[in-house]
Amino acid sequence: MMRCQIDHIGVAVAGLDQALSFYRDVLGLEVEPAETIATQQVRAQFVRCAGAAGGGGASIELIEATADDSPVGRFVARRGAGLHHLALAVPDIVAALAMLKARGVRLIDETPRPGAHGALVAFVHPSSTNGVLLELKQA
Amino acid sequence: MMRCQIDHIGVAVAGLDQALSFYRDVLGLEVEPAETIATQQVRAQFVRCAGAAGGGGASIELIEATADDSPVGRFVARRGAGLHHLALAVPDIVAALAMLKARGVRLIDETPRPGAHGALVAFVHPSSTNGVLLELKQA
Repeated sequence: MMRCQIDHIGVAVAGLDQALSFYRDVLGLEVEPAETIATQQVRAQFVRCAGAAGGGGASIELIEATADDSPVGRFVARRGAGLHHLALAVPDIVAALAMLKARGVRLIDETPRPGAHGALVAFVHPSSTNGVLLELKQA
Repeated sequence: MMRCQIDHIGVAVAGLDQALSFYRDVLGLEVEPAETIATQQVRAQFVRCAGAAGGGGASIELIEATADDSPVGRFVARRGAGLHHLALAVPDIVAALAMLKARGVRLIDETPRPGAHGALVAFVHPSSTNGVLLELKQA
């Protein structure tokens, strides 16, 4: 069994400011400062959904393309804003990637790259996951 | 502020059995028994991502349409399997719906209906949420 938990849900948006008018201003959720992730050509802003108990919950990552001709830019142009990826936190991303590769899973990234929050991330191809762009993230 | 936390991510799939071959057999995640949700014309199966610490985490809900001419059946026919909805657990769904309506948010369900796990659920229209089909869920 792969030890993991849901870290966040990535939502591709046309613009962070417009998205915040719903997630921050209507829902009243807490947002972190925006962060530019050069390797993914996005600006990202995490929205915390901690509930009454606080802490530990999964969050929403709003992502805005920094270039039209980028994966997120093309996604939004083709399908509109919406759910983009599902990120699982794993304790050892190299081991997780090796396990998936050994089982014939198609990887987008065979080696981890820098992601948000200074984490290491790697993406698994939707063709192996029933259409879900799956991110693995090691803090 | 709306108290909430991410309860689950809904993933629309062509068939539960095929999806389990990845989420259960490759990732090795724990799955609950399948449940038919008549009001949504789906069979649903929850996949737990509890991590090492166990408990409390958000889960993945695999959903298979029970009729081609149903919202999930049409979604899969049009876009293929993939991320379908994001569910937030709220302590008082009636109060949450009233708050959202007062703020001009477009609701699919103005009153809650029965969902998985015997919970009350209601959906918010993607046109108000930057393209995300948002489910509110009260246990």
